[in-house]
Amino acid sequence: MSAESRLARGRRTLAELGGDGEAVFAALADIAPDMGRYVGEFVFGDLYGRPGLTVRERQLLTLASLTALGGTERQVAFHLGLALNAGATPNDVVETLLAGLPFAGFPRTVNSLIAAREVFAARGLLPVPAAPDPD
Amino acid sequence: MSAESRLARGRRTLAELGGDGEAVFAALADIAPDMGRYVGEFVFGDLYGRPGLTVRERQLLTLASLTALGGTERQVAFHLGLALNAGATPNDVVETLLAGLPFAGFPRTVNSLIAAREVFAARGLLPVPAAPDPD
Amino acid sequence: MSAESRLARGRRTLAELGGDGEAVFAALADIAPDMGRYVGEFVFGDLYGRPGLTVRERQLLTLASLTALGGTERQVAFHLGLALNAGATPNDVVETLLAGLPFAGFPRTVNSLIAAREVFAARGLLPVPAAPDPD
Amino acid sequence: MSAESRLARGRRTLAELGGDGEAVFAALADIAPDMGRYVGEFVFGDLYGRPGLTVRERQLLTLASLTALGGTERQVAFHLGLALNAGATPNDVVETLLAGLPFAGFPRTVNSLIAAREVFAARGLLPVPAAPDPD
Amino acid sequence: MSAESRLARGRRTLAELGGDGEAVFAALADIAPDMGRYVGEFVFGDLYGRPGLTVRERQLLTLASLTALGGTERQVAFHLGLALNAGATPNDVVETLLAGLPFAGFPRTVNSLIAAREVFAARGLLPVPAAPDPD
Amino acid sequence: MSAESRLARGRRTLAELGGDGEAVFAALADIAPDMGRYVGEFVFGDLYGRPGLTVRERQLLTLASLTALGGTERQVAFHLGLALNAGATPNDVVETLLAGLPFAGFPRTVNSLIAAREVFAARGLLPVPAAPDPD
Repeated sequence: MSAESRLARGRRTLAELGGDGEAVFAALADIAPDMGRYVGEFVFGDLYGRPGLTVRERQLLTLASLTALGGTERQVAFHLGLALNAGATPNDVVETLLAGLPFAGFPRTVNSLIAAREVFAARGLLPVPAAPDPD
Repeated sequence: MSAESRLARGRRTLAELGGDGEAVFAALADIAPDMGRYVGEFVFGDLYGRPGLTVRERQLLTLASLTALGGTERQVAFHLGLALNAGATPNDVVETLLAGLPFAGFPRTVNSLIAAREVFAARGLLPVPAAPDPD
Repeated sequence: MSAESRLARGRRTLAELGGDGEAVFAALADIAPDMGRYVGEFVFGDLYGRPGLTVRERQLLTLASLTALGGTERQVAFHLGLALNAGATPNDVVETLLAGLPFAGFPRTVNSLIAAREVFAARGLLPVPAAPDPD
Repeated sequence: MSAESRLARGRRTLAELGGDGEAVFAALADIAPDMGRYVGEFVFGDLYGRPGLTVRERQLLTLASLTALGGTERQVAFHLGLALNAGATPNDVVETLLAGLPFAGFPRTVNSLIAAREVFAARGLLPVPAAPDPD
Repeated sequence: MSAESRLARGRRTLAELGGDGEAVFAALADIAPDMGRYVGEFVFGDLYGRPGLTVRERQLLTLASLTALGGTERQVAFHLGLALNAGATPNDVVETLLAGLPFAGFPRTVNSLIAAREVFAARGLLPVPAAPDPD
Repeated sequence: MSAESRLARGRRTLAELGGDGEAVFAALADIAPDMGRYVGEFVFGDLYGRPGLTVRERQLLTLASLTALGGTERQVAFHLGLALNAGATPNDVVETLLAGLPFAGFPRTVNSLIAAREVFAARGLLPVPAAPDPD
């Protein structure tokens, strides 16, 4: 597969997710256009093009990774939008963040919840229904 | 729900996952028994008892969190065992780790793959079938 | 001890520290009310309710943990307020942050000092007296 | 104060703490002797020489910082020895590590507890008395 | 070398780099003046005064360290200014950040690029010329 | 450029650096062969193939990134070997690690120095000449 088709595939994946891929590429165009190219080719081309996990699963895993990493509020907001577009519910997102709580710790989990809350608010998705008591 | 039932629920969850919960509790018993109790009550009682995600999904999310966190080879090995017991395939695990690669970076992803490889080897699960070409 | 009393104990501890616990719970109420509940039950109920360290010591330890973790300016501000309410002096706080400098490194220590400076300024606690020369 | 006296002061502090400072300096002597010098001058000279916190408090804060940082099992063992020499009890150490649990998360806290357990075992300090129920 | 001369040397180094060292010292003067002193003495005095690497090399290494650390946008902006003053080109800076991409991961690299872009924009250095195709 | 040529270029770069690239690929072959492929294509093909920095500079930057990241002793050993093969001296490596000390902190810097010391010892490169006094 040529470099062009990896990039094209990544852009198509981003577009299908409703992510404003062109905005991602444009934001870095005047400083590091190759960075946008690597996002398209490697992240959304090579990796998102892999079989075995659904796009919804990939996006929830991404939110777990970003939260454990910390300092990623910008990326949480971006990927959370893609997660919702891929069929994840707001409750899926909240449960994903709470599932990571013992590992990422409270501060990073709260920071991601606050970033998520802004996205939910902008989309009119608040309040997120509380998880029903499992017992 | 009383504290005892949270702990009992956590121990039951761990036992259902085939995780040697009693070994976890025993390892910390002579230094910080309450730590084992919190693992049982909070992690496997409160959090794993939440609705909305399957246990398999929780375990894959946990592997993503641990890999992004780094320095968690011990925990990757423990939770990977639970992931397999919860129905995740070796390929699910590998795809989960590769999905986190852009966020956790290459070193932490390789470290988790090496830890995973040891668990797979001990269970006779190598080689993990390579993901089929999606195109 | 029932779950209710853990939460009640955590809320009482937070209130005694002068922390606006209700604000904490409210901020997450429409996205993840259980997160606020876990803060109350687990952090301020279970852990702050433990014997062996004073609340002032716990708060200084918390500032050390948050600084080493990084990306926690929001939490530094919150816990620093509790630290002052628990009897820590501004100089205690500064010495705590400087004690962590070799481990957390300069950038994270500076970030916490800048966050602390804002809290001190809002409370009219600047300038913090420089530590006297020990020699 | 001259550079020599900063180093001399740091070495004296380390010696007073019962820490094998000469071993620290020797371990790096053939690769980066200045690193040992900086440990002596800056960490144990400048910073440990500051007023306002006791050595016991500094050592507990150090354990909190190291645990939140992660990947520091070697340093946890070294500083834990100093903490005990400075008058911290094993229970102080355990409570310090548990106090950091919400911030450092479970994996890093468990890793530090396991490192601490080895030091306690080597000194015949196990089992650490469980904290009495505060209620 | 006396403590005064270490500080004087650090201030001279910072001044030669065109960094507003006095602003650094002033920002922390009313909360932790010793922190500014340590920046001058230890970072720019002891460490920048070492032989073996050029100042330009030190600054590029610093940008790599800060990016891998994360949550350091403030420091990236400060040190990037010094890097440019030390003779690094905008393209050197971008290549440095891209060289760290496999280790720091995409989010932290993007965060540093965005911080760098603001500095470049303020200095009229945009667009950064794209790296020519090496083949 | 086709995917094959990216991988071929990465393998050639690794071979030129004297790095045992085939061992890297083989180590992951039975769990995640695509991971080895990404190392070859993306890290050593795309990124190392970029113009603007020398291979020696890239390797020193890599050591700075890995040290700041932490938990990367395995990768420090691997890349340090490549750094030496690319013309970096042991003193360059030590100065690189000391340059990152204020950012990565003492524990991660010491961990990298200890990993480096083992590589130097295996190659008969100890003692590393201490940096001459710059004044």
